[in-house]
Amino acid sequence: MHAPLSAPPINPIHACGDTPLALIDPAAIGHNLGRLRQLLAYPGCSPTARIWAVIKSDAYGHTLAHAYAGLGQADGLAVLTLDEAGQCRRLGWTGPILAMSAHITRAALEDPRLYPLHLIVDHEEQLAPLLSLQPPCSPHVWLRYRGQLNHAGFDRVAYRNAHARLLPGLHAGRLAGLGHMQHYARAEDAEYMLAERKAFQELTQGMPGPVCSDNSAALLSDHVGAARSSWVRSGIALYGISPLHGLNGPDLGLRAAMVLQAPLYGFQTLQPGDTLGYGGTFRAQRETRVGLVRCGYAHGYPRGMPQGCPVLVNGRKAAIIGRVSMDTLTIDLSDHPDAGYGTTVILWGLPELPIEAVATKAGTIPAQLCSGLTGQVPRRAAS
Amino acid sequence: MHAPLSAPPINPIHACGDTPLALIDPAAIGHNLGRLRQLLAYPGCSPTARIWAVIKSDAYGHTLAHAYAGLGQADGLAVLTLDEAGQCRRLGWTGPILAMSAHITRAALEDPRLYPLHLIVDHEEQLAPLLSLQPPCSPHVWLRYRGQLNHAGFDRVAYRNAHARLLPGLHAGRLAGLGHMQHYARAEDAEYMLAERKAFQELTQGMPGPVCSDNSAALLSDHVGAARSSWVRSGIALYGISPLHGLNGPDLGLRAAMVLQAPLYGFQTLQPGDTLGYGGTFRAQRETRVGLVRCGYAHGYPRGMPQGCPVLVNGRKAAIIGRVSMDTLTIDLSDHPDAGYGTTVILWGLPELPIEAVATKAGTIPAQLCSGLTGQVPRRAAS
Repeated sequence: MHAPLSAPPINPIHACGDTPLALIDPAAIGHNLGRLRQLLAYPGCSPTARIWAVIKSDAYGHTLAHAYAGLGQADGLAVLTLDEAGQCRRLGWTGPILAMSAHITRAALEDPRLYPLHLIVDHEEQLAPLLSLQPPCSPHVWLRYRGQLNHAGFDRVAYRNAHARLLPGLHAGRLAGLGHMQHYARAEDAEYMLAERKAFQELTQGMPGPVCSDNSAALLSDHVGAARSSWVRSGIALYGISPLHGLNGPDLGLRAAMVLQAPLYGFQTLQPGDTLGYGGTFRAQRETRVGLVRCGYAHGYPRGMPQGCPVLVNGRKAAIIGRVSMDTLTIDLSDHPDAGYGTTVILWGLPELPIEAVATKAGTIPAQLCSGLTGQVPRRAAS
Repeated sequence: MHAPLSAPPINPIHACGDTPLALIDPAAIGHNLGRLRQLLAYPGCSPTARIWAVIKSDAYGHTLAHAYAGLGQADGLAVLTLDEAGQCRRLGWTGPILAMSAHITRAALEDPRLYPLHLIVDHEEQLAPLLSLQPPCSPHVWLRYRGQLNHAGFDRVAYRNAHARLLPGLHAGRLAGLGHMQHYARAEDAEYMLAERKAFQELTQGMPGPVCSDNSAALLSDHVGAARSSWVRSGIALYGISPLHGLNGPDLGLRAAMVLQAPLYGFQTLQPGDTLGYGGTFRAQRETRVGLVRCGYAHGYPRGMPQGCPVLVNGRKAAIIGRVSMDTLTIDLSDHPDAGYGTTVILWGLPELPIEAVATKAGTIPAQLCSGLTGQVPRRAAS
């Protein structure tokens, strides 16, 4: 399942000022799109499933502004709201846009600049406004089945009813398409997936139309199954991150699109018995050289990160000690005499320190780390 | 220790669109400044300690732009960097600014627009550039003692040496002042505080100059002790949040400056045995009406929030069920038949649902919640 990684990982920037910095590499996003397309186009498969590049939540924290340059080969962009759809159009995107959770009103949908527009529809109140539209404002509608996730979506009976109500709109040309969508609650669980795929097939039997049910995890754990769909949706893998437990992006042929780095801004030497940080949660057992790193929970770094989580200093690992505070995390530099003021510390995103490993340490998932970065972290294009 | 709360809490906004919204009330910040001043000006105390309003981390997530209107009565604004100091000047602030962790170079300090400027100095490399400055660019310097926090700061010997090196600069008018600063590691622990205050007094004996050692927690747990300082620094209390475990802002006479609210955008009815959300962590025991709320970890809401955490729906509590996902959290609305599309859900910041209680549920501190909100949460002035 390996693909060659066609470029080196992101180069950290040295002497990076006095804030953390997230370096975003659009080329990695382009590479990851290519990798997913390669998986979907296995020999004998035709036609190839198309890929929605999921860029909600400001491209999972990578920022749409920086990610956009890597999205040229996407078949469509998937956002949550019509506001975000408008943002994509202003950036120059002319291809399909999928609004996954739009506030659907006739007025909002009568803006021809939004088209080609795909809409996920998941409750009855949305049907009437859709049926009142006139070309060229004809959205492609995807009905969402609630499945076992039980977030937005119709139950089985309401799904069939909604389909029956929208079908005349499709035939009259008010809708550009009518497809079937669901979202898995546990795409990493093969047995569950088999049952969910089957239940969805049974539900949609006799209702023609394209299908879009697979996300990154579904695609990467069963690309043959995913390739049978018309469209897949990929978010986390697009950014080079593995959605599969125990694997990292490079294991799947993906390249990380974000490096989080921060500068060393101070040092201390602790004597045995000295404590460090709020609450004094670290107590030195030996003489310990401490490095102060300008990144904390106000930047989105997890306050609950346990001591021992690795960071990279001049390419070698060092461990977090003490409690992460608002603007500072502290690391053990006893074995890093070369680290000085302004030395760049890597917090995640290089092959030696994948975001997946940092997330596991923090008891969370990588998507929470990258999308949880705050406005206090400047994003800059990787060079 | 109660003071009358001179105004009602923040009014949530109804029909709040399709993102969460943080409402910021500058009047609450003004009230909290007044409350802290009242505590410092107890009878017989003179002169009164001055208050640095700590507005680093974009005013702890409240945003400086929105908080600024409430800061008029502050004696000074405390930021981390010179960039942030420049931001305050551009907003029109003409009073003192304290840069708590500035990158100190002669070139950066030769901008007269930054003055009156106070600088915290905590390592030796910073001394030479300071001594090379000429009026009117004469900063007020505060030496930082590392104390038991052991973040930035001089040890005892280096502290005395730095003072001796800077004193001639003070006498020659290159420095506007030379003071003593430290930051407590456990300000909520009375016994610890007593020892730390004593150690700091011993250190600074024979070195005249103003003292600034107390933060919100120190001030609120020992306002008589705090009033002996020249300056105190208040961050968290400024925003109406209690730094003292087991108390909420209103218990200390403070008013919350932020309400986090989000709209209901969907509903489901679960039958007994149905699961909800990623990983299926909730399984319905009875018929359950689920509400989908547009707020998740990409907004900064804790992904690890345990089920059962309360929210407010039409003034009454409802509980989070299932796992918080990227853009959605799910609540049990079985006892809220009145909740419909667009109903506003309060996630924290009203007296019935203080941020302190939400933080305790999440196993964190309130500062992490408010400063951890991402750029995906619009901030709006409360009315």
